[in-house]
Amino acid sequence: MLQIVPGGVTAAPGFTAAGLHCGIRRNQAKPDLALVLADRDCAAAAVYTTNRVQAAPIAVTRAHLADGRGRAILANSGCANACAPGGLENARRVCAAAAAVLGLRETDIIVNSTGVIGVPLPVEAIESALPALADALSRAGGADAALAIMTTDTRPKEAAVTTEIDGRTVTVGGMAKGSGMIHPNMATMLAFLTTDCAIAPGPLRAALADSARRTYNRVSVDGDTSTNDMTAILASGAAGHPPIESPDDPRFALFKEALDAVNLTLARAIARDGEGATRLVVCRVRGAGSETDAEVLAKAVITSSLVKTALFGADANWGRVLCALGYAGAPLRPESVDVAFSSTAGRVVVCRGGEGLPFDETLAKEILSQSEVTLEVDCGAGAHGAEAYGCDLSYDYVRINGDYRT
Amino acid sequence: MLQIVPGGVTAAPGFTAAGLHCGIRRNQAKPDLALVLADRDCAAAAVYTTNRVQAAPIAVTRAHLADGRGRAILANSGCANACAPGGLENARRVCAAAAAVLGLRETDIIVNSTGVIGVPLPVEAIESALPALADALSRAGGADAALAIMTTDTRPKEAAVTTEIDGRTVTVGGMAKGSGMIHPNMATMLAFLTTDCAIAPGPLRAALADSARRTYNRVSVDGDTSTNDMTAILASGAAGHPPIESPDDPRFALFKEALDAVNLTLARAIARDGEGATRLVVCRVRGAGSETDAEVLAKAVITSSLVKTALFGADANWGRVLCALGYAGAPLRPESVDVAFSSTAGRVVVCRGGEGLPFDETLAKEILSQSEVTLEVDCGAGAHGAEAYGCDLSYDYVRINGDYRT
Repeated sequence: MLQIVPGGVTAAPGFTAAGLHCGIRRNQAKPDLALVLADRDCAAAAVYTTNRVQAAPIAVTRAHLADGRGRAILANSGCANACAPGGLENARRVCAAAAAVLGLRETDIIVNSTGVIGVPLPVEAIESALPALADALSRAGGADAALAIMTTDTRPKEAAVTTEIDGRTVTVGGMAKGSGMIHPNMATMLAFLTTDCAIAPGPLRAALADSARRTYNRVSVDGDTSTNDMTAILASGAAGHPPIESPDDPRFALFKEALDAVNLTLARAIARDGEGATRLVVCRVRGAGSETDAEVLAKAVITSSLVKTALFGADANWGRVLCALGYAGAPLRPESVDVAFSSTAGRVVVCRGGEGLPFDETLAKEILSQSEVTLEVDCGAGAHGAEAYGCDLSYDYVRINGDYRT
Repeated sequence: MLQIVPGGVTAAPGFTAAGLHCGIRRNQAKPDLALVLADRDCAAAAVYTTNRVQAAPIAVTRAHLADGRGRAILANSGCANACAPGGLENARRVCAAAAAVLGLRETDIIVNSTGVIGVPLPVEAIESALPALADALSRAGGADAALAIMTTDTRPKEAAVTTEIDGRTVTVGGMAKGSGMIHPNMATMLAFLTTDCAIAPGPLRAALADSARRTYNRVSVDGDTSTNDMTAILASGAAGHPPIESPDDPRFALFKEALDAVNLTLARAIARDGEGATRLVVCRVRGAGSETDAEVLAKAVITSSLVKTALFGADANWGRVLCALGYAGAPLRPESVDVAFSSTAGRVVVCRGGEGLPFDETLAKEILSQSEVTLEVDCGAGAHGAEAYGCDLSYDYVRINGDYRT
């Protein structure tokens, strides 16, 4: 039923988007301002960073979404508008400007920023660019919007699927940016989603929260939870089926399946494109006592700097996986743990019952040299499992972050 | 009263030590086996890693110290004897061999290993080398022992002080190894201490636990808590004063002060010599609501990969400090937080009341380019403080850990 379709945040009919360079970033070739607009009033929901230091636009968006409705998304890169003088006032000013240009109320706007912390938002640059940005809105503009929210991302991240609800085709699409300051703790990056599904704000919020927990919250690039993280969704109802009013509605699961598929694709793309990353690392834990235990264990493995550097070197140093499992904080009987490494190049079991096995080092190296590697852990203690998504730690992560502000 | 004196684990009279190459490591120039011996029965205490995956020697030492007494320390580098076939049996075998050579009981031996996880301990190599190691025991051998426990450490770590108790000179000395898989969670490395102080096992344990909490447990190199961490101390009583029988004894504080001084010196040395580190990074938090809050906040800052890479680049990216404080988990009012950077090159305030200040970038770069840098945080919320000790994250950390096993 679920079908992967092209496009991203404008895949669902009725949504347009645009992205352009307004002057926040020095590189004029890099778009730094994105706008997404729905052709009608939408149910809206978002999840936010758990960091106690929260960027000003987080507070503004939270207030705007108090009524569960929204219509447009305005996001810039190059400046986080966090810990910056005049932050709240500036976030409100750009919303007011966007509302004026689009003929909306300020509270219809979802706003966020990403980039350097502590620098005042260049409000005039954004205000001046808004008319041109609004003129550029189109279905095709989703790709430009995805470019405009990138920071150190090396490629844009878009995904979309369709499903069928009450005989109507329902589309869920989205775009995300990730790269650095990425760690599982609520939403851990920016992701903006749109859908023409007819769904009330309550179940929309429930679907988004649970989906974020299983996707974005299982990604870590560097263990740092950003001040600006947000995942937001607009649901227009344009698909025309009777609205989903409750998570108990059987159609809720259909929508949720589509939402999960888009979010998982974007989450994996964020991990794969982590700052300096050369490969996507998936830790698949099974045999745990609960899903939470499995999640805690999987996250600890993909977060370990020692596991990450070993994977950069394609070195089968599985002891570091055991070590990370041991300090994760979840129950673990080391003597029951099996570990294997797998990828398109094959599979090798390296540890059984908590002790090392002789294994083919050449094959292991080949397996770990692929662009996607899975670390399989069986805890031998239960029937629950979870996956977490990370990347390796390379010289380039150090290079990128040794001098990020210039 | 406290005096810094030369030497390390043999600074206290009555202790001898030796280190040699027994064949665990391929590089014959690198000693890999260390022995420390007291000339009499000692009160003994240790604190251990909190990792659920614990190396075999941790379990063996725990059993040996159940009676609060000990006499010798045997430690090897090059192999962690963790998650390795025959681990417990091998740890017991080397203790038995050492006891036979030294004429002690097995339970007199504190044993530990450090190095690669998952590889069987080369017991024969250790057994064969023990007679020569025992023959080499001397006061001067403390330096060799400190070399023999090093893994990726670039320099040995020794410290010693004297204090006066009841008119007698009491010495506390020690050696440590650190470098990688270092994270605040009980003792986070190996440290072996000796003293001629007369102190019962109970207060000795209390002193060591509290001292470790304030020193080693505030160090992080890479966020990974090792499977083999241990800090152990032997107290011979040779100084000849009436024994300290309780932490309420006013002389306990004198001993504790000496112990803290040695442990803090070794802890800072571990941070400074973290894998790939180019500088020691101290985060000094004050104005917190409790010491625990201050500790949690300081640890979060020195653990952040983004703070660490910025410091490698001597980049005054203070927003990352705010970000780390925000996700640390301790209470924080961002609008009350001040941040300054200081070193021998000067001091610059970069953030006041949670917002950035204009500052001299050239001066900030100069300050952050020194070999020891302090990140000063004032939470503006209370009267408590704590320091944590870390290092920067450099290309060399990635290089060292991309191919650690070979």
